[in-house]
Amino acid sequence: MRRVNEVVTGWMRDAGMTVRRDHVGNLRGRYEGSAPGPSLLLGSHLDSVRDAGKYDGPLGVLVAIEAVQRLHDHHTRPPFPIEVLAFADEEGLRFGATYLGSRALAGRLGEDDLRRIDADGVTMADAIRRFGGDPAKIVEDRWQGERPLGYVEVHIEQGPVLESLGLPVGVVSAIAGQSRFEITVAGEAGHAGTVPMDRRHDALTAASEVVLAVEAVANRNAQMVATVGKLAVEPGAANVIPGRVTFTLDVRHPDDAERQEACKTILSSARDVASRRGVGIEVRPVSDRAAVACSPRLMALLLDAGGPGLIQLPSGAGHDAVFMSELTDIGMLFVRCKGGVSHNPAESVEAADVAVAVDVLGRFLDLLGKG
Amino acid sequence: MRRVNEVVTGWMRDAGMTVRRDHVGNLRGRYEGSAPGPSLLLGSHLDSVRDAGKYDGPLGVLVAIEAVQRLHDHHTRPPFPIEVLAFADEEGLRFGATYLGSRALAGRLGEDDLRRIDADGVTMADAIRRFGGDPAKIVEDRWQGERPLGYVEVHIEQGPVLESLGLPVGVVSAIAGQSRFEITVAGEAGHAGTVPMDRRHDALTAASEVVLAVEAVANRNAQMVATVGKLAVEPGAANVIPGRVTFTLDVRHPDDAERQEACKTILSSARDVASRRGVGIEVRPVSDRAAVACSPRLMALLLDAGGPGLIQLPSGAGHDAVFMSELTDIGMLFVRCKGGVSHNPAESVEAADVAVAVDVLGRFLDLLGKG
Repeated sequence: MRRVNEVVTGWMRDAGMTVRRDHVGNLRGRYEGSAPGPSLLLGSHLDSVRDAGKYDGPLGVLVAIEAVQRLHDHHTRPPFPIEVLAFADEEGLRFGATYLGSRALAGRLGEDDLRRIDADGVTMADAIRRFGGDPAKIVEDRWQGERPLGYVEVHIEQGPVLESLGLPVGVVSAIAGQSRFEITVAGEAGHAGTVPMDRRHDALTAASEVVLAVEAVANRNAQMVATVGKLAVEPGAANVIPGRVTFTLDVRHPDDAERQEACKTILSSARDVASRRGVGIEVRPVSDRAAVACSPRLMALLLDAGGPGLIQLPSGAGHDAVFMSELTDIGMLFVRCKGGVSHNPAESVEAADVAVAVDVLGRFLDLLGKG
Repeated sequence: MRRVNEVVTGWMRDAGMTVRRDHVGNLRGRYEGSAPGPSLLLGSHLDSVRDAGKYDGPLGVLVAIEAVQRLHDHHTRPPFPIEVLAFADEEGLRFGATYLGSRALAGRLGEDDLRRIDADGVTMADAIRRFGGDPAKIVEDRWQGERPLGYVEVHIEQGPVLESLGLPVGVVSAIAGQSRFEITVAGEAGHAGTVPMDRRHDALTAASEVVLAVEAVANRNAQMVATVGKLAVEPGAANVIPGRVTFTLDVRHPDDAERQEACKTILSSARDVASRRGVGIEVRPVSDRAAVACSPRLMALLLDAGGPGLIQLPSGAGHDAVFMSELTDIGMLFVRCKGGVSHNPAESVEAADVAVAVDVLGRFLDLLGKG
């Protein structure tokens, strides 16, 4: 993170920006406008996951810097200041909490977060201190002054839609809402050779029915996705009937009512399975995030900037824009990625598509200035 | 193991036996008969699993010693020598290979086994050496001399049948054959928020269908049991579509043809699921053990010894008797256990039921002597 901050700081300065790092560790590059007044915010995050690709996060920061660089190269100043935000931690790997950078900007990073510890027992407060920030001053990271004109984030799609339509970029309509649960099925462990089938309370066969019910519910709705991504079997031996299965459930839809309805259907059929099979079931809600709509005005400007043929699509993944929406209007531009692959070293984008994204963002700045 | 061997050696000697330990670590207590000739073998194993109960294994050794103790107390010698075998390692936890003690007796412990290593990298050969045996002389552990009269093992049922019928003991008719497989489903990992349902190749939903197919096939046949006991999901994160699922399959039936037919049905429906869902499937056969029938003559004697009301039942679990069947006729007597619970600290038997087992074994020795 120190190395990338150093490099990106240099690039921001080269593009005519003044740069500071806030307490949580976000870089903030400021390019002054031809007049004072509210700023336009651009950005994305610099961190990634383990065993990651190169684009999820950094691409959005670099496209924003490049758009400013072009203004700077042409000695142009838009009629508003631009701030490029390079967020410190969106993925949340180290402390198990996501959107740390944008949450600090939105004033939503609290004492509880600062007490979180990483795998080595280091608190977030200590980590911030070691990185040169002052955890006691996190509140000062909150956006100060006038409400910004908006926040626009460029990001790889992380899905297959643009590729399947043969389009380099697309305008995001909304970030899907997301419900997460942890579900535990408690059956009865027993010897795989000696307990007759009709006396079993196998936690895994019950969980398997639920996994298939999750899929069936999501299949009934084109914009719905629902996933059981993690599932653990106890005791987990070839010759022991599973006594306990714990699994995650992740349900997303751009429409909150549809998402909540789907969750209700899934959980009620999970309870039916459990009662029919004589196993216990416990459902722990982990998180419930409402969908975030993109600003119709920013979407319209991005669509104009992109020209005919540009489509709108929802984002199934969360982004820093989720928390930025608490501060201001948001807009997002997706860049096609190869095979929809993300969070993987095989993550890949075409340079030509990135050039389109820079062009669209540049024209957007132009249109916004005229608007 | 050293401690239990010391204690059990003492009890064997108290019961009038001469005791030796063979190279693999089995205790062999010998009670001479009134005449020379082939021996009757009794026994079970002294080891157990982790987090185990007290009875799976040791009960059979102690019932055998107690039966001999009664002969000794009455200064009685049967018309054949009795050898009580206390096997060193039936469960196979340390080296991942089962029936070590009885395999050595059957001459089926080979060089490959001696090279197996435990979690600390210690080879079986070294472990045997440290325990006082000579791995180079394992072949000498093989049963020497005349074919024995038979091998009779007392063991807890590890299932719920005797309890549900209100019977203290039962005579085993056969040890079920067992097929084990490791099955890997290879789908495509992806972002749980961005890959639409109709573009997914989710390894876990595919595996869930297979788990339910396994159950359905076993449900169609009263004596069949089939279990997926272990299942691992990769990468295994709440927000990632499962890319790979590996699971075990364990199928048992006292009739080998029925078992093989069931395996064929299960694997073919697993391949159907995989091809319908566009995921790969790999089936690795892990083991295939034929059913072992108990000797009709020994069964008849045990049933006579037990008196009216005694039932026959198959054993779904494997026992040292499996390998002893390569040397001689086998017979087994099951003792009722609470709730069918085994491999668990809650494993429990009634003292009164154990007394019945000792009586039945005593009368069996008597009948065999007369026979």
